Amino acid sequence: VAMAGYGWARAVRGLLLDVSGVLYDSGADGGVPIAGSAEAVRRIKASGLKLQLCTNETQATRENFVRKLRALGFDVSVAEVTAPAPAACRLLKERGLRPHLLVHDDLVPEFAEVDKTNPNCVVLGDAAENFTYAKLNEAFRLLIGMEKPVLISLGKGRYYKETDGLKLDVGAYMKALEYACDVQAEVVGKPAKRFFESALAELGVPPEQAIMIGDDIENDVGGAQQCGMRALQVRTGKYRPSDENHPEVKPDAYVNNLAEAVDIILQQL
Amino acid sequence: VAMAGYGWARAVRGLLLDVSGVLYDSGADGGVPIAGSAEAVRRIKASGLKLQLCTNETQATRENFVRKLRALGFDVSVAEVTAPAPAACRLLKERGLRPHLLVHDDLVPEFAEVDKTNPNCVVLGDAAENFTYAKLNEAFRLLIGMEKPVLISLGKGRYYKETDGLKLDVGAYMKALEYACDVQAEVVGKPAKRFFESALAELGVPPEQAIMIGDDIENDVGGAQQCGMRALQVRTGKYRPSDENHPEVKPDAYVNNLAEAVDIILQQL
Repeated sequence: VAMAGYGWARAVRGLLLDVSGVLYDSGADGGVPIAGSAEAVRRIKASGLKLQLCTNETQATRENFVRKLRALGFDVSVAEVTAPAPAACRLLKERGLRPHLLVHDDLVPEFAEVDKTNPNCVVLGDAAENFTYAKLNEAFRLLIGMEKPVLISLGKGRYYKETDGLKLDVGAYMKALEYACDVQAEVVGKPAKRFFESALAELGVPPEQAIMIGDDIENDVGGAQQCGMRALQVRTGKYRPSDENHPEVKPDAYVNNLAEAVDIILQQL
Repeated sequence: VAMAGYGWARAVRGLLLDVSGVLYDSGADGGVPIAGSAEAVRRIKASGLKLQLCTNETQATRENFVRKLRALGFDVSVAEVTAPAPAACRLLKERGLRPHLLVHDDLVPEFAEVDKTNPNCVVLGDAAENFTYAKLNEAFRLLIGMEKPVLISLGKGRYYKETDGLKLDVGAYMKALEYACDVQAEVVGKPAKRFFESALAELGVPPEQAIMIGDDIENDVGGAQQCGMRALQVRTGKYRPSDENHPEVKPDAYVNNLAEAVDIILQQL
């Protein structure tokens, strides 16, 4: 591992970590930790660096998500998770929007306090098995029936990796509804600037003192850099060698995995 | 009905008709004829004008499609139907492509003669109930695993109207896969120029002597005009009043339905 060329990491005071593909590979079996990542989280905390998980996870409430991560050996708490559903709830309340939800069953409790009668917008998450022909048609009909269709998408990822293979992410279904209704979705979650700003506020560190570590070249690396952060791409999770030729986004560094990222960063302190 | 301003129709020698939304409204119940359309088809034939059905229908073989139309009272034959699946088969053979099919079960026989082993492309049709989460993920994984993903889409419609409501059309799912794999689909079917040219060849009439009649402002009207035809939009099927403000496409005329279109055209002869 080359340790030269990371001088910029000396200013770091906090890390934003993507979760799926960085801490663990998700899957119907509950997922499996990525080697060295649980120990890396402990080393970050022991170093005095602040840590916030910045995830587009929308298949579970934050409570259940943290329970799963703890069972996999990660020392994390609900307060350390920035996720799209709570951000969407704030936006819905601000704008008096009443959503029709096309989301994973396990995410529904995050919207318990939101008025969902007589919907005037559609909120789309990674609904997984709920992405049925019938439910997509239902969301489409509601949208196209609105005078001014409002589509809110919890992320715009293309795909992600589960233990049994790659899966289409919410962004693909977002594009389907955008095209059918000739609307542009509002994205809540990475790579939206506002979402990274929320995560930084919860981290308590300004962008120039924070580093994002993720496996998604566009949503993690590109989004964080747009907010003035440095960003590393790990070669785990959905990483593919072709990411290194991305036409627009260039990470501040590539690392083999989170453990190596933490090695490099802690050596600069 | 204003009969002035249709002088250009005097040159007409053949008509291309869209089917769903023009002849009948489709549906799981077999669909219902649009009032006056069966009689209009008879009047076209009695007038000596040539007629070809130019459809993006991909939920059935042409044989079954024609059987259904005849049962609804339409005097049409298989030779009078230009549809995407046979055009796709020609393209696959020309290019040595072996498709993975994500199409309606009833369309599969159209691909009987095509080698489907070890797929090197994905052919996407209006798969309807086959648009499941599992089957979309399967098509996605095949595509993203190809060195150079080839996605062939049988049409790119946004939605269509069935007797029980609007449904997402193949174009929406095409956009989902295009986005996930960062590829551009090749469209076989309307509005592809090559497809209209096939239909005109089968009609045996040059574009300037043909009129397209359809309910889809982009795929029927826009596509036909791009090929040098005149095109009428009917106010049946998926027609919506907002179509009349389309930013790019302006039909040569609006008509309430096929019967009115035929009234106008026959009066010019």
